[in-house]
Amino acid sequence: RIDGERLWDSLMQMARIGPGVAGGNNRQTLTDADAEGRALFRDWCEAAGMTMGLDRMGNMFMRHEGAEPDLDPVYIGSHLDTQPTGGKYDGVLGVLSGLEVIRSIRDLGLRTRRPIVVVNWTNEEGTRFAPAMLASGVFAGVHDEDFANSREDAEGKRFGDELDRIGWRGDEEPGRRKIHAMFEYHIEQGPILEAEGRQIGVVTQGQGLWWLQVTLTGKDAHTGSTPMKMRVNAGLGMARITEAVHRIAMDHQPNAVGAVGQANVYPNSRNVIPGKAVFTIDFRSPDLEKLTSMRSKLEAEAVDIAKGLGLGLEIEPVGHFDPVTFDPGLAQTLRDAADRLGYSHMDLVSGAGHDACWINRVAPTVMIMCPCVDGLSHNEAEEISPEWARAGADVLLHAVLDTAEI
Amino acid sequence: RIDGERLWDSLMQMARIGPGVAGGNNRQTLTDADAEGRALFRDWCEAAGMTMGLDRMGNMFMRHEGAEPDLDPVYIGSHLDTQPTGGKYDGVLGVLSGLEVIRSIRDLGLRTRRPIVVVNWTNEEGTRFAPAMLASGVFAGVHDEDFANSREDAEGKRFGDELDRIGWRGDEEPGRRKIHAMFEYHIEQGPILEAEGRQIGVVTQGQGLWWLQVTLTGKDAHTGSTPMKMRVNAGLGMARITEAVHRIAMDHQPNAVGAVGQANVYPNSRNVIPGKAVFTIDFRSPDLEKLTSMRSKLEAEAVDIAKGLGLGLEIEPVGHFDPVTFDPGLAQTLRDAADRLGYSHMDLVSGAGHDACWINRVAPTVMIMCPCVDGLSHNEAEEISPEWARAGADVLLHAVLDTAEI
Ligand SMILES: NC(=O)NCCC(=O)O
Ligand SMILES: NC(=O)NCCC(=O)O
Repeated sequence: RIDGERLWDSLMQMARIGPGVAGGNNRQTLTDADAEGRALFRDWCEAAGMTMGLDRMGNMFMRHEGAEPDLDPVYIGSHLDTQPTGGKYDGVLGVLSGLEVIRSIRDLGLRTRRPIVVVNWTNEEGTRFAPAMLASGVFAGVHDEDFANSREDAEGKRFGDELDRIGWRGDEEPGRRKIHAMFEYHIEQGPILEAEGRQIGVVTQGQGLWWLQVTLTGKDAHTGSTPMKMRVNAGLGMARITEAVHRIAMDHQPNAVGAVGQANVYPNSRNVIPGKAVFTIDFRSPDLEKLTSMRSKLEAEAVDIAKGLGLGLEIEPVGHFDPVTFDPGLAQTLRDAADRLGYSHMDLVSGAGHDACWINRVAPTVMIMCPCVDGLSHNEAEEISPEWARAGADVLLHAVLDTAEI
Repeated sequence: RIDGERLWDSLMQMARIGPGVAGGNNRQTLTDADAEGRALFRDWCEAAGMTMGLDRMGNMFMRHEGAEPDLDPVYIGSHLDTQPTGGKYDGVLGVLSGLEVIRSIRDLGLRTRRPIVVVNWTNEEGTRFAPAMLASGVFAGVHDEDFANSREDAEGKRFGDELDRIGWRGDEEPGRRKIHAMFEYHIEQGPILEAEGRQIGVVTQGQGLWWLQVTLTGKDAHTGSTPMKMRVNAGLGMARITEAVHRIAMDHQPNAVGAVGQANVYPNSRNVIPGKAVFTIDFRSPDLEKLTSMRSKLEAEAVDIAKGLGLGLEIEPVGHFDPVTFDPGLAQTLRDAADRLGYSHMDLVSGAGHDACWINRVAPTVMIMCPCVDGLSHNEAEEISPEWARAGADVLLHAVLDTAEI
């Protein structure tokens, strides 16, 4: 078993970097706080005898040597970046549990045949630079490096420039590593495990996703002196499309979700009818047909809504992945490990996107989940218990030992 | 007649201060650009032999002496502050036409019995610090000074602190001046004069207004892993209330308008269901019953919408005035002046709020309007022709001479 207290202590230490405003974290990707978090993680890993590889996307590969160094390693990976008002566990739990697995292996004097590599994937969250899981996507060959480097944040800063600025760009070509298997351990970010009273989720599938960015163009005009019939109100268009996103998701129940996360009107003045609105749509489903149908229904409705209001309309897809099926053999390894350890478990579909979803395209991959309080995530109040954290890390340890061949 | 070229030239010079991004202006109240605009106006006035009074709200009173200095002066007032993406004429035309009236009186060697005072009222726009027409409101006794000084902008800066910072707070107690009559000359900011082909609008009434600020409180949560039925989506609530504002305004046609101008969701992240939304509503009508009805209908609907989504709801009134009827005698003076000068005219209801609406409570007041292209205002593309500007200023000159007794 891993050392639950040491794991929790590491989580709390990491959470001091990039503190939020309400007990959580704001350690967004490629900020100074991200650089500080990376350095702490590297120092901890090096103290545990690991050596660092760093690729041109800033992905950090911390290697624990195996008895047979030429065998393809077993990977454990997740992310250290957070939402702007994020929790302390989303991503971080997986990376630091990887470190804890290595610490435990050393403490126990165990030796695996295969090397084990703990990865921190860059820009998983996708809030600052869309799309999410950007650098694992480059690793998996889904995006090319130029695409990633050119992604811009809301202030127009580019991913590549910010990666250089914080000093975490490496030389290694992304995607050149051979992966025997990858495990990602993550909080559920949903309510099912807690509701069902299970300690462990064995993630057999991941939802697919469409992210769309919508720009509506109307005409700035005075709210008082412009007659109703002369208005070209981009804010009203945004309201109608926001309602349509919700209704379309409801029409595709069960197993489908949809929401508008970012919403901005311009010039954003009390007495100006908004002449422009820019907002983002997030549709997801584990069912490819539903996912495709939601997107196309929304696009058709948006055209009608814009036409009805005389608005210009642009819809740009800024993120996409198809539903994912994880490796059934690795899923069985997790169930066996949980059974052996006496932890209750159930199969799950991941509601969120994860780096594992991309890595699954290039190597056998699976995910472990632990519950989180009220299913709440992407919220500074995100919470888990030390016992939940430990149970998943124990399962991770056993599954990694089985796969890396002790 | 006034010197149309000189007036236009002054307008263009003022527009160089606080330039916008698209040919208009961003000279918001109590910014450095506002201070620069004030200094230019003061210098011009002093060069025309006028003397400055400055009150504790930063209202600038530029006095041209009369033959009988003890008589109550005739006032000409509007504002030099602009919207964040505002036009070059909104407010500025009225202030600089006041200056042009004095310049013309001097050129013509005329002498009025009554003094004439040209006023720049502080913070007419109300975008940076709500409500609009703040300092003329204090002058008219509608607001007290503490209320005004404590108003905060979006960054939490206070009106009083910013007024001190730019160095334009005077010693004079606001509202102590006796006003024989006040004229405000302003662009229409609506489409009627242009559509009707008239040069001059004689403003007999002003619409009443309610400004409401709405805060909805839900729960930040993950857009992917939170089931639809567990969401408490503040952005969806904002969308529904935005639609309700529009529908309610449409239900009160004609002579009623309504829109949401500011719209913000938090944390404004692509993959976070908004846990908070803050937005502003602007309802107006020249009909008090309609105005009251729109507000109460909206408040009732907002309660239902919030309840239906499980959202917390707060509605704060941040601006209000009843419909205004301007002085009929002064309106007749304007019609007579326009007839004498051979300019076509018609009576108008002002769609926008103006400093004149407050001053009307403490002194006989009236407004003159000139057309603006496509009725467009609160937009950097706001445009008028030099001929339109001149015609209104000619009428202003004649009406002021009649009232100040030549
Ligand atoms: N796990 C997680 O929150 N990833 C961010 C990408 C997403 O929104 O699913
Ligand atoms: N004239 C003008 O735009 N005033 C600002 C206050 C309002 O919105 O009516």
